[in-house]
Formats: sequence, C-alpha cells, structure tokens
Amino acid sequence: MAMPINELLTDENIEEQAWRALEQSILYYQGRPIGTVAAYDVSVEALNYDQCFVRDFVSSALIFLIKGRTDIVRNFLEETLKLQPKERELDAYKPGRGLIPASFKVVSVNGQEHLEADFGEHAIARVTPVDSCLWWIILLRAYIVATKDYSIAYEPEFQNGIRLIMEICLANRFDMYPTLLVPDGACMIDRRMGIYGHPLELQVLFYAALRAAREMLICKGNQDIVAAIDNRLPLLCAHIRQHYWIDINRLNTIYRFKSEEYGKAAVNLFNIYVDSLPYYELDKWLPIKGGYLAGNVGPSQLDTRFFALGNLMAIISDLATEEQSQAIMTLIEEQWDDLMGDMPMKICFPALENEEYRIVTGCDPKNIPWSYHNAGSWPVLMWMFAAASVKTNKIGLARKAIEIAKVRLSEDEWPEYYDGKKGRLIGKQARKYQTWTIAGFLLAKELMDNPIYLSLVSFDELSPEVISRACEFEIGSVDPFLSH
Amino acid sequence: MAMPINELLTDENIEEQAWRALEQSILYYQGRPIGTVAAYDVSVEALNYDQCFVRDFVSSALIFLIKGRTDIVRNFLEETLKLQPKERELDAYKPGRGLIPASFKVVSVNGQEHLEADFGEHAIARVTPVDSCLWWIILLRAYIVATKDYSIAYEPEFQNGIRLIMEICLANRFDMYPTLLVPDGACMIDRRMGIYGHPLELQVLFYAALRAAREMLICKGNQDIVAAIDNRLPLLCAHIRQHYWIDINRLNTIYRFKSEEYGKAAVNLFNIYVDSLPYYELDKWLPIKGGYLAGNVGPSQLDTRFFALGNLMAIISDLATEEQSQAIMTLIEEQWDDLMGDMPMKICFPALENEEYRIVTGCDPKNIPWSYHNAGSWPVLMWMFAAASVKTNKIGLARKAIEIAKVRLSEDEWPEYYDGKKGRLIGKQARKYQTWTIAGFLLAKELMDNPIYLSLVSFDELSPEVISRACEFEIGSVDPFLSH
Repeated sequence: MAMPINELLTDENIEEQAWRALEQSILYYQGRPIGTVAAYDVSVEALNYDQCFVRDFVSSALIFLIKGRTDIVRNFLEETLKLQPKERELDAYKPGRGLIPASFKVVSVNGQEHLEADFGEHAIARVTPVDSCLWWIILLRAYIVATKDYSIAYEPEFQNGIRLIMEICLANRFDMYPTLLVPDGACMIDRRMGIYGHPLELQVLFYAALRAAREMLICKGNQDIVAAIDNRLPLLCAHIRQHYWIDINRLNTIYRFKSEEYGKAAVNLFNIYVDSLPYYELDKWLPIKGGYLAGNVGPSQLDTRFFALGNLMAIISDLATEEQSQAIMTLIEEQWDDLMGDMPMKICFPALENEEYRIVTGCDPKNIPWSYHNAGSWPVLMWMFAAASVKTNKIGLARKAIEIAKVRLSEDEWPEYYDGKKGRLIGKQARKYQTWTIAGFLLAKELMDNPIYLSLVSFDELSPEVISRACEFEIGSVDPFLSH
Repeated sequence: MAMPINELLTDENIEEQAWRALEQSILYYQGRPIGTVAAYDVSVEALNYDQCFVRDFVSSALIFLIKGRTDIVRNFLEETLKLQPKERELDAYKPGRGLIPASFKVVSVNGQEHLEADFGEHAIARVTPVDSCLWWIILLRAYIVATKDYSIAYEPEFQNGIRLIMEICLANRFDMYPTLLVPDGACMIDRRMGIYGHPLELQVLFYAALRAAREMLICKGNQDIVAAIDNRLPLLCAHIRQHYWIDINRLNTIYRFKSEEYGKAAVNLFNIYVDSLPYYELDKWLPIKGGYLAGNVGPSQLDTRFFALGNLMAIISDLATEEQSQAIMTLIEEQWDDLMGDMPMKICFPALENEEYRIVTGCDPKNIPWSYHNAGSWPVLMWMFAAASVKTNKIGLARKAIEIAKVRLSEDEWPEYYDGKKGRLIGKQARKYQTWTIAGFLLAKELMDNPIYLSLVSFDELSPEVISRACEFEIGSVDPFLSH
C-alpha cells in the first residue's frame, strides 16, 4: 500500500521545520557563528535561554558536523577554549584552572562584542558545571573524527586546554576511588537530586573524556598525564562495570550481603544495607536478561534509580561491556512504557516521591515527582538512544522512539521536556523551540539513517595494551570485569 | 558545710582510675610510646579497636602535652608523618599524596615490628578520613605551643608534610567555594549521615589547620602555598560566618527568601526552599539570643541540624565571631536538656527519624534515631565544650557538665557513647574503656582548672593584615562578616 501523500509531506515538513528552527538558534559573535542559544522562544522572557550552554550545544554540534557545517563547531571550540581559566586562581570564588564554563553569552558594550562566561556563579543555587569540560573534550574529538583533521588538537593552545582539563580531573584528592567526586547537580541534572558524590553521568563522561584525551594528547611533554590516564582508564572501567551494575543476579548477591564487614576482604565493599533498596520493586521490574548501571555508589549508598544519559553514554563510549550494553537495551525494550512512554525518554526512573522527594531535592518545586529532572521526559536523549541502538544493533527500537516523538514534537513546538508518568504533559516550565530538543531529533534521525556517524561519539574496546599497564595495581580485582 | 570524705575520695578516685586506664591504652612501637589504642576493653573482640586512630588520639595527646609527656606526642607526629604518602600515586585506589591515615597499628612479622596504616581501605564502607591530615597539623602546632620548641616544625620532613597537606586541601578543584568538598562520612561521623559536600566539621578543622599551617610554614620556598592560605582564610571565615549562621533573625530572612533567583545579585544564593526547613521547630527551639552554625550548606540544601564538634571548634579556633560564640553558648545553656541531657554531649541534634533516617543514612542499624552518630551522646566532646567555655568565659557551664558526667562515666567504665534522648542508655555497641572518653574527661578537667592550656588549640582573631591581602578579591561581600 502506498503511503498517503500528506503523511509523507508531514515527515519532510517536520525535518524542514526543525532545520529552520535550528538555523534560527545560531549565535553569532563578531560576525562568526559560534554556537546555538538554549531556546528561541519569542513568547517568554529570555532569562538565561539566550545563552549558549556547552552541554546543550553538543547535539547541535554533532548534527552540524554531520552536515559539513564544521566551522561553527571549530569556532565554538576555539572561543570556549579562550574562556577556560589558564592560571591558578587564588580567589576561591573563581572557577578552577581547566574548567570550561556551563554557558556563555555575547554581550555588546559600546558596539564592541565580547563573551561573558558563566561557571555557575550566575546560576541558580550556584552549581558547578563539571560536565562542561568533559563534553568539550568529547566534542573536540568528534570534530577531528568528522574532519579527519588532527591539526586543531595539536595546536599548542588546544594541547594546553586538554592538559588543564585532565589536570583538574586527575588532581590529587581526598577520594580513594577511580571515580570523580563531585557536588550535587554538577551535570545535566543541575539541581539538587541526590546525585552528589559519584553520580553515574559524570563518571561515564569522565571515562569518554579520558579516552578522547588519550587519543589527542601528544605524549611528548605530557608523559605524566598520559601515564595517569593509562592507569586510570582500566580501573575506572572495571569499577563502574563491577560496582554500578544491577541485574537480577547482582541483586540476588546484594540482597544477601552481610553488613559491617571490616577489612580488605569485605564483600559488601560499600556497606550497603538491603533495607535501603527497593528490592521488591526491582524483583518485579528487572527483566531476566535486562540490567543497568546504578545512578550513584558511595558509603552505604546504592542509588538504584535508572539514569538515561549515563546508561546510554556507557553503551556508546564502550564503558559498559557488550553483554551489559545488550542488557541495558533489553531493559529499555521490556520496560518501554516506563522508560519511553509517549515521549522518549525519561531522564531517570522512577521519580522520587513523597518524603523522599522532599528530603532529597530539598522540596524543589520544579522537580516535583514525574516532572523536569525528577523523571520527566527529555526528547534530547533520543539521539543518545539512537546512537546506543546503532551500537547494539537494535536500530528498530530507535525507529520506534522517533515515530512516537516526531509529530508531537512538531505540534508542540519542540518543548524542552515533558511531565507525567507517560510523558503526555508538556513540561510545566518548558520553553518551546528548545534547541537541544530540535537538534537531538535531527541527530537521532541522522544516526539511524547513517550509522557510520556513530563514530563521532563512540569508542572501541579499551585496548589490552592500555589495560596491561595497570596490571601492577589491582588487576586481581579488575580482571574479571574487563575480559569477555 | 564540709564535703563528705567519701565524695572527696570518689572525685580523686575517678581521676586516678582514668589515668590508670589511659596509661594502659598507650601503644608501644619498637620500645617507644607512639599513641593510644582506641579502646582497651578486654571483654570483647578487638576488631579495629586495637589501633591508634588519629582523631581519637588528639584528646590523649593534648592531656599528655599538658602533663609534660611530650615524647609520646612527638613520636606520634614523627611516625604518622612517615605514613603520609609523599609521591603522586598513579593507582586511583591508593591514598592521595598528603593524606594522613585514619588509623595505624603495630604489626609484628618474624619479631620485626612495623606500622600498618589504614586510609579507609580497610574501613567499613571505605570512607576517606579527611579530618586526619587536618588534626595532624592542629596537633603539631599544639606540640609547639606546649614545648615552645618550633624546631620540629622547621625540620625539612615536617615542612614537606605540612606543605603536602596544604596542597591536597588547596588543590585545583571543581568547586567554587572557599570550603572543602568532601565525601560523606569523612570525619568523626564516619558513616553515611547526610554530611556529604561541605559539612561544618571539616570546614572548621580546615580553618584551624590553615591557621596552624600559616604559623608553621617557612615562607621561603613556600610562597605559593602561603599566598594561597592568606587568600583562603578570610574568604573561608566570611563564608562560614555568613552562610552557615542560624539565629532567629537569620531564620526570619531565610523564611522569606525568594527562590529561583538567577544572576549575581541573588540573595538566596543557594536556592534554599523554605519548605525543606523545620522552621516551625526552630521558631520554638532557638533562644532569642542564641544561634549556631548549620551542619551543611549546598545547592538547595541547608542542614539545620546542630553539630557539636563543628560549633565548639568554631568557637575555639576563632572561626565564629565573638558574638556568634556567645550565641552558641547561650543556645547550649538554654537548650541544656536537649544538647547535654544526662550525659554531655550530643554529637548532633535532633536525630534523623522515620523516613528521613531511612533515606539519609541508608537504613544504618548502628545510626538508628538517638543512637551513635545520629544524636547519640559522646563524652569526648566534653573537652571541646570545656575549651569553648573557657574561651567564652562560661566556665560554670563546663563545671556543670563535668559534674553530671563524672560518676556515671566511672561507674559505666568509660563507654564511647550513650544513646537515647537524654543520654541515659549506654551506647548499644559502645566499647568500655574507650580511650578518648577517658582522655576527654581528664582534658576537660585540666582545661577548666588551668585555662591557660586553652592556647594549645585556640587561635586569636584573624589579623587584619592577613585579611587585607584578600581585599582584591571579594572584600565587598566579605567585609561585614569579618568586623564585629
């Protein structure tokens, strides 16, 4: 049966509409395109939506790279690099050396344009954007993959920028894990949500940034950093694969954990008390062959919420094993109603409700249950889902998601997020024409249609050569979680 | 009326008994006394109570210094300094350069004694002891005050040790506050208790350690660290005095906070939602002239629990203003039943109960409401209370506390902690003959009887000269909180 002509048109129209909106969001600085504004919604006050957010720009950047508009991305990388603090700051209220701002905007003074960066000092609740510097490195590497031109990374300014980011990530610290210790709300979830300590999202981005930096750093003069990366990578990888993983077998193990174990031989390393877990819910929810990476792990803490960005990027970056990646996709497929519903896809699941909402979010009215960060639905995540689908050969799932989303997104004028258990309510405070919703949609389509573009953001298996360099450390405990 | 002779005897007997027990707790290494074991309770298995914990030893060390037994303290400082990692560790599971272990023990292999350090890798839940390196510096300075011999600090090994601790504390980091970002349970409360991020206890110890390090570091060769300390001190001081302070005026301000403020002019800097505070309880509990420093401040987080160690050490170290110090003592006096009860003094108040206990502690059975860290009573805190009483000229309060505690402590054989709202239950899992209970009691008595010893741990007002060096930074916002 032939497809009705008006539906065909609609499909094309939606993409055309998206492209037009994306074009409109491009931010110019001194005559050159350098990014995209967060939202181009003329119906409401701009607040900070007239800024270019680093994490938001990633989806625009990737679709620009695919479409050959590499100049915008190059300009973005060059300008944000200039905003990175290069000197050690004595003033504790200033951003640390190496950080990349959360966002920037073009400010005009006496006809002279300049960029104003925000490292969190303007942000609501003054949260620090730890993810920005990690995304910046991931994006720089994507630019190189797209252009096949390594020269940008070899420029001294870029080598220095990469090095400074690695230095702040690998700095001497109080922690004794391969993971990064961060404050609450330091990533896409930029409000208090119980993701202090060692949240999955930042560990996965950290892993991808380490992989990218390792590819781009010139060894000469950076031997110390390269050695530190080579040692950290396998430990971080094994740590996440082992301690963050949840499936029914692992849940069975945790369920019978002894607590209060003292000494190196402890099995319940983090002293998790089973009563703190919703094990009865998970017993029902976890498919036999499904699994996922937990949201956070710390002392007596195993956050069993499912976080989409961390799990999807773990697949894409090869941080999850092949088996774990398949299990994550199986979980999403089997729990489609919960995780995708009527608008792909939930930023996390389930929502914090009642007292837990009150205590963990600090009564945040924007993060009420099943809204915004607290289990709202974020269309931008669709590009990561598409990429993960390509990587795991489950492309049919991504097609299904896009089919669900496309007409509504267009009709609803590309809101940033949706609320409710099924995602059928337009986000209570969502802007329309939110750039990363638009770019994420276009990027998802592109990744499905041309799986080759997965290479922009994906990594191959961690080479055994790198792994072997870490053998002298904890290879005994690392080994079983690296080999498959 | 003459004091009955048996009561007089009892008083002396208690002290004698305490001294005997303290002597018995001394740990020897290669024939030299180097510390005290955590508890000398022959009735139960030692587990890790046969170790010398750095934070526990502080009270023993101070009483030894007062009594002229300075050799033990010197040996302790020298031996723990040797345990400090001096090189950058590539293995992420190893303690960072500069850290001082949580504890150590003497191990004998083939008749050869050596020390085995624990940086948290043996500990239950693998918590990192951030406080150890801070206490170590504070104790080194106390040794110098007691002996009037600066030469130990000037030894190259000690200069290097101080420098390394300062380096890890002042390292480049993600945070944009003068405070230290730490994992949960990194101090005396070494289990999950919602004290992740920027808990008061560690900020106060950080402040005292900065002050102590500033006195002891030779400027030559350490100009960078000294400059960093000089800049951090006034910012940290003003930050705590401003953002952690709670009294009825401040509560009124917070109660009418607007939320979701964007930009540098925001008044509700951390975006606190009033619904997250027990403002109705505080309205009743806060005396007109009383106040205290909050337990923790972060994005949408103001932990209004009262934590004793942080508040008392803030008085002693001069981190609290004179006015704030008086207000803290007033609060303790007016809420004596809650904070002192029948066994001084509560480690924090009030307890986390019901859902809040479940969620914040991760269902920790040792930290059930009104037990152990969760609002249990810890006699060791009495020495800090005595010191704070001396500093604020409220010595009568300390006498009252000692009177309450002494007979029970002796009769109960010096348990580590007490449970219940009034502290009348011996701690559910408390050891007897816990060294810091014993030493804390002796130290409290000594501080009251000879107020001059306060100088071992106290600091004078931060000199205007140091403050002025930071003027170039945020003095506009700092100023009103430094002048009293």
